[in-house]
Amino acid sequence: MAEALTLARRGLYSTHPNPRVGAVVVRDGQIVGRGAHLRAGDAHAEVFALAQAGERARGATLYVTLEPCCHHGRTPPCTDAILTAGVASVVIAIADPNPRVRGGGIALLQQQGLQVELGCLAEEATALNIGFVRRMRSGRPWIRLKQAQSLDGCVALASGESQWLTGSAARADVQRERAAASAIVVGVGTVLADNPRLAPRVDFPLCRFPHKIILDSHLRTPADAALFDTPGEIWIFHGQDADPERRIRLIQRGAHLQGLPMGPKGVGLDLAALWTALAQRECNEVLVEAGPELATSLLRGGWVDEWLLYLAPKILGEGAQPAARLGPYAQLDAVPSWRLWRAETIAGDVKLQLLSAEGQSCLQESFKP
Amino acid sequence: MAEALTLARRGLYSTHPNPRVGAVVVRDGQIVGRGAHLRAGDAHAEVFALAQAGERARGATLYVTLEPCCHHGRTPPCTDAILTAGVASVVIAIADPNPRVRGGGIALLQQQGLQVELGCLAEEATALNIGFVRRMRSGRPWIRLKQAQSLDGCVALASGESQWLTGSAARADVQRERAAASAIVVGVGTVLADNPRLAPRVDFPLCRFPHKIILDSHLRTPADAALFDTPGEIWIFHGQDADPERRIRLIQRGAHLQGLPMGPKGVGLDLAALWTALAQRECNEVLVEAGPELATSLLRGGWVDEWLLYLAPKILGEGAQPAARLGPYAQLDAVPSWRLWRAETIAGDVKLQLLSAEGQSCLQESFKP
Repeated sequence: MAEALTLARRGLYSTHPNPRVGAVVVRDGQIVGRGAHLRAGDAHAEVFALAQAGERARGATLYVTLEPCCHHGRTPPCTDAILTAGVASVVIAIADPNPRVRGGGIALLQQQGLQVELGCLAEEATALNIGFVRRMRSGRPWIRLKQAQSLDGCVALASGESQWLTGSAARADVQRERAAASAIVVGVGTVLADNPRLAPRVDFPLCRFPHKIILDSHLRTPADAALFDTPGEIWIFHGQDADPERRIRLIQRGAHLQGLPMGPKGVGLDLAALWTALAQRECNEVLVEAGPELATSLLRGGWVDEWLLYLAPKILGEGAQPAARLGPYAQLDAVPSWRLWRAETIAGDVKLQLLSAEGQSCLQESFKP
Repeated sequence: MAEALTLARRGLYSTHPNPRVGAVVVRDGQIVGRGAHLRAGDAHAEVFALAQAGERARGATLYVTLEPCCHHGRTPPCTDAILTAGVASVVIAIADPNPRVRGGGIALLQQQGLQVELGCLAEEATALNIGFVRRMRSGRPWIRLKQAQSLDGCVALASGESQWLTGSAARADVQRERAAASAIVVGVGTVLADNPRLAPRVDFPLCRFPHKIILDSHLRTPADAALFDTPGEIWIFHGQDADPERRIRLIQRGAHLQGLPMGPKGVGLDLAALWTALAQRECNEVLVEAGPELATSLLRGGWVDEWLLYLAPKILGEGAQPAARLGPYAQLDAVPSWRLWRAETIAGDVKLQLLSAEGQSCLQESFKP
């Protein structure tokens, strides 16, 4: 299964909106077939692995990181291929949270007399498709808030100066995080302040680019923003009373526009509606590159599943701008608890991945049919 | 040499005020002798390793993590033992920064026709004795500032509530850091607020306990403080006009007292004088367990060689107490830069070891004779 997970990771940057899946066929202790799903519309991992195994698949064991599908989607059901190949047993990391499958693949294989085992390396398999799992289970994407901050939790000096807090290796890592996401979300404030390209710059070829999503209540995005000239679809979410002329100008620049209700107290867009819209557009993981204002809304609203924090070994000191405005808290029990999921040193900086209580339960409670 | 360093680490908790040293004798590609220095007054690492090698040391190579001594200290010179054993060549990680040796051991061995190589795994060897190197070279201890803080750089809520920010595994690690230090330094504010025992609680036997040092300008340390009842010498540094009666009471409780001039602007004790006093008392590494006030003095004064930071994955939010009051800084170039030396996950917390520019140069500029 570890090998199947390694294969699945080959699809990290390309399977959107599908999950990343790997499969291995083992016969008499030898791997006789390997497969990975790489692009939506291409064959599934099981099909590749079984084709490579050929006749040796008969009586063999298939290891697959996600429950085989039993429905006609973009490709025919994998359960058919498995039955035709004559596999004796199937080891599955996690059940498919897709309501069209949800244990149906497992049940069908068992009915046909195959031995099925579920739960091998389940947490690793869930982690690799955490956005797909979140979307299928909760109808919203996995929300990954990315920030770079100092050791005293600040993103910029009082003067606003903030480039560059972290080193080049950490910034290159952010580009890989962008490339793996279904979509990158920014507030219009970031567009106005930094004029970002929002397209990942990585040192390997990309066959798809994440969607570029701008939260822009009053359509202040300039029609000559740099992000209009980089690959990837552009979606701008705005308030329902946004200026029609601005709408037209941005649509002419190639952006997709969608109105959303305003959030509580009329401040910002309704984030619940935003996530629903993004899930409908098949976004699995979204990377929110938030300034302090958006980060504060996300954290106060309890929307963040994963906090991706790059720490620079600096203290920005008094008067500097905090990464988010939280609290005050009257007692330690009231302080929201995050679980340290992963920590890594990247050159001279530290990369932390923290899970909220809800993010953690999504990771750990794998669907059991 | 890696093996010699492993042996040297056995002395981590016990060689004070001596350096930790390991030695290995290699003959025809085989280790024929191992030695470590464990306690001041006991034989040095080379002597143990050569004794174990016996006749096999003749013509062999000796690997030692610190230049062999050539003077009569607490034990006879190691160069004598090396010459007597008939070793052909000596590989040394770093020269001894002790002014009584400083290349003298190397010169003596070379004069006697031995081949001597210097600099193998020098940074690791320096790191293991960073306090000894700092004291011998600069006449002051290695100053390790220890703090536990949240991701927004705070140590307590506005209410003062702070126990426990980090988990039990991180707190156990602090106990090991205490045990390895020559001395633990706290301000009297910490004594009054927390009444700490200041003696390490570790799950292995200790043959020495670090000195307990209190910075107490006005001798406010209560005579019934818990630290009087734990092992380890107590030294209280105070202002020169401290109340004589209080002095007598604390001396009766077994503390050693020493007056120091006050610091700049009459606030706190003169830290430069403190470090000199601690170096005179043969302190190598001191662990400063500082509250925000003392941490601010140390950091603003540029005294910190190493910042030992335990990060709890929490945000304490608005109104919380920062770990130190630094800045404001007008531009990023003016922000002091720290080098991330080591980073480690300890259960759910993160342990960072950061070096100041001065700490870094102490680590990297090994003495070359």
